[in-house]
Amino acid sequence: MGEFDLIRRFFQRPATPGAGIHAAPGVALGVGDDAALLAPAPGMHLAISSDMLVQGRHFFADVDPAALGHKALAVNLSDMAATGARPLAFTLALALPQADEAWLTAFSAGLFALADAHDCALVGGDTTQGPLNLCITIFGEVPAGQALTRAGARPGDDLWVSGSLGDARLALLALQGQLALPPAALAVARQRLERPTPRVALGLALRGIATSAIDLSDGLAGDVGHLLHASRAGAVLYAQEAMNLVASWASPMGLEPFLDDETRLRHVLTGGDDYELLFTAPTAARAAVQAAARASATPVTRIGHIDASPGLRLRNAQGQEGPLPPVASFDHFRA
Amino acid sequence: MGEFDLIRRFFQRPATPGAGIHAAPGVALGVGDDAALLAPAPGMHLAISSDMLVQGRHFFADVDPAALGHKALAVNLSDMAATGARPLAFTLALALPQADEAWLTAFSAGLFALADAHDCALVGGDTTQGPLNLCITIFGEVPAGQALTRAGARPGDDLWVSGSLGDARLALLALQGQLALPPAALAVARQRLERPTPRVALGLALRGIATSAIDLSDGLAGDVGHLLHASRAGAVLYAQEAMNLVASWASPMGLEPFLDDETRLRHVLTGGDDYELLFTAPTAARAAVQAAARASATPVTRIGHIDASPGLRLRNAQGQEGPLPPVASFDHFRA
Repeated sequence: MGEFDLIRRFFQRPATPGAGIHAAPGVALGVGDDAALLAPAPGMHLAISSDMLVQGRHFFADVDPAALGHKALAVNLSDMAATGARPLAFTLALALPQADEAWLTAFSAGLFALADAHDCALVGGDTTQGPLNLCITIFGEVPAGQALTRAGARPGDDLWVSGSLGDARLALLALQGQLALPPAALAVARQRLERPTPRVALGLALRGIATSAIDLSDGLAGDVGHLLHASRAGAVLYAQEAMNLVASWASPMGLEPFLDDETRLRHVLTGGDDYELLFTAPTAARAAVQAAARASATPVTRIGHIDASPGLRLRNAQGQEGPLPPVASFDHFRA
Repeated sequence: MGEFDLIRRFFQRPATPGAGIHAAPGVALGVGDDAALLAPAPGMHLAISSDMLVQGRHFFADVDPAALGHKALAVNLSDMAATGARPLAFTLALALPQADEAWLTAFSAGLFALADAHDCALVGGDTTQGPLNLCITIFGEVPAGQALTRAGARPGDDLWVSGSLGDARLALLALQGQLALPPAALAVARQRLERPTPRVALGLALRGIATSAIDLSDGLAGDVGHLLHASRAGAVLYAQEAMNLVASWASPMGLEPFLDDETRLRHVLTGGDDYELLFTAPTAARAAVQAAARASATPVTRIGHIDASPGLRLRNAQGQEGPLPPVASFDHFRA
């Protein structure tokens, strides 16, 4: 199977048939020419984000290819969510050791299932031989001036987070044999690691409500740090509310608690791979945030507040503030 | 050096300082947030292309990193040229075995020198640890309806090509020890392999003149085939004019001919890595094509014509038409 056959068989779809044919809303030209053409609607900014996934770093060699297809797009959709942008289209650049038909069938099925769920068209890319590497660049639209950025948090704003945290890390440690999890818990945690849910609907619902947003990919402690740096502010994190986000699905499942408080706190702070939204909103907007959460069927939890004094502090159940326990954010070049 | 230091030191520039600050014309938000924001001008389509470069496949491990920075962007700019789009911005996703300061300094210098020459801003991307892999996605703008595609060639149109062909392949064969080249010829050919010139100005000048265009990355024979397939047409290639494109700089340099005709023809047909434009235009537009070439200071040569009967034929110096010699286009998954 040649490169062009491969593209035609696995990545060129009836809906995006190439030269001269309109592929999807906002797409003037899809897969198959030197460039794709997007037709942004008047008054819209185009939001762009790019993520590269490398074998051994972001996924295991034996990963389910359908799950990998899902995740490669999900991490990019998550950036659109954090920007309040509606996903339009994406490009996929793929380096593959060999053109394995079964692998490509499953990978493209996982990829397109999520793409279709978000009306997000594959409009181009590249395919080459090499160590397995996936690079997706995604495009979304957001009305000019309405994008959510990391820079708008103000002292007094509440700090909110969507969904649950730390589950992907729990699954990773369990799969590496560093942690024992009840089978039912491992199944849920593993789903969160391999098939994260990008919070696109919540991001859209938070336009005009949230003052800042970031998606949680490197762990809460590190990502809060990025938001505070961009907003030139500090924050207080509520320890009890934060640690309750780890395996928040365990009690409803009837599982006994399987982690102590210290472990839960460490997991929520250093988790990584969560792909939840962390965002800020004025205290006056609490009802609006809850309404956005209901409208997008996404649970949200208030886990702290922004203040003017720099740095991140932890408030315990007794209301005492202190420094964070020593934690490290995930960094691809730190030992 | 951590991931975020690396981005700040080598890829975040005073001109694109991140959150909230306008980075460049058409760029509303540059490096440093979950997404970059482009602000397309009214009536413009956004042209998008993505290319991935893998070590051992697209470049040698010991490549000059400044040349690699140049080439990674050049191959993407070449796609904008073939679309008649004005480059606006790009994202860079980079997998690196380690964060080598000298390498990154040279790489980013080569990258930004070419980016600055085209007013093309780096607006985002990703950095991770892994086998060396570069993925650039580029964005350009073109007035709605004016993009050059592969699909517009019509019987009777002339077939044109810019610059010279086959030089990159000559250099590759010489560097691999498969071909002896005079040192002066190797120096020129190697420059063409390692620092190709994207024909952006020519692409812009051909808007409204050319009926179709493609950039030559896989070799003339294969890329003409893509254009003919998209245009549902055939073509006749003029052997003499085509083979004169190989090392067309040799005679002006005072070099004796160092390749026989058959070798030259094979090189022009299968070359690859040329990054010249192949385009079609009506015979009535010959003066306009020459004017566009002069305005963009880019030599062009008429090397054939489109006709209705499918396939690609070769016309020799005596005016006889026959099939092409058996050649293969470069394909990343064919043995």
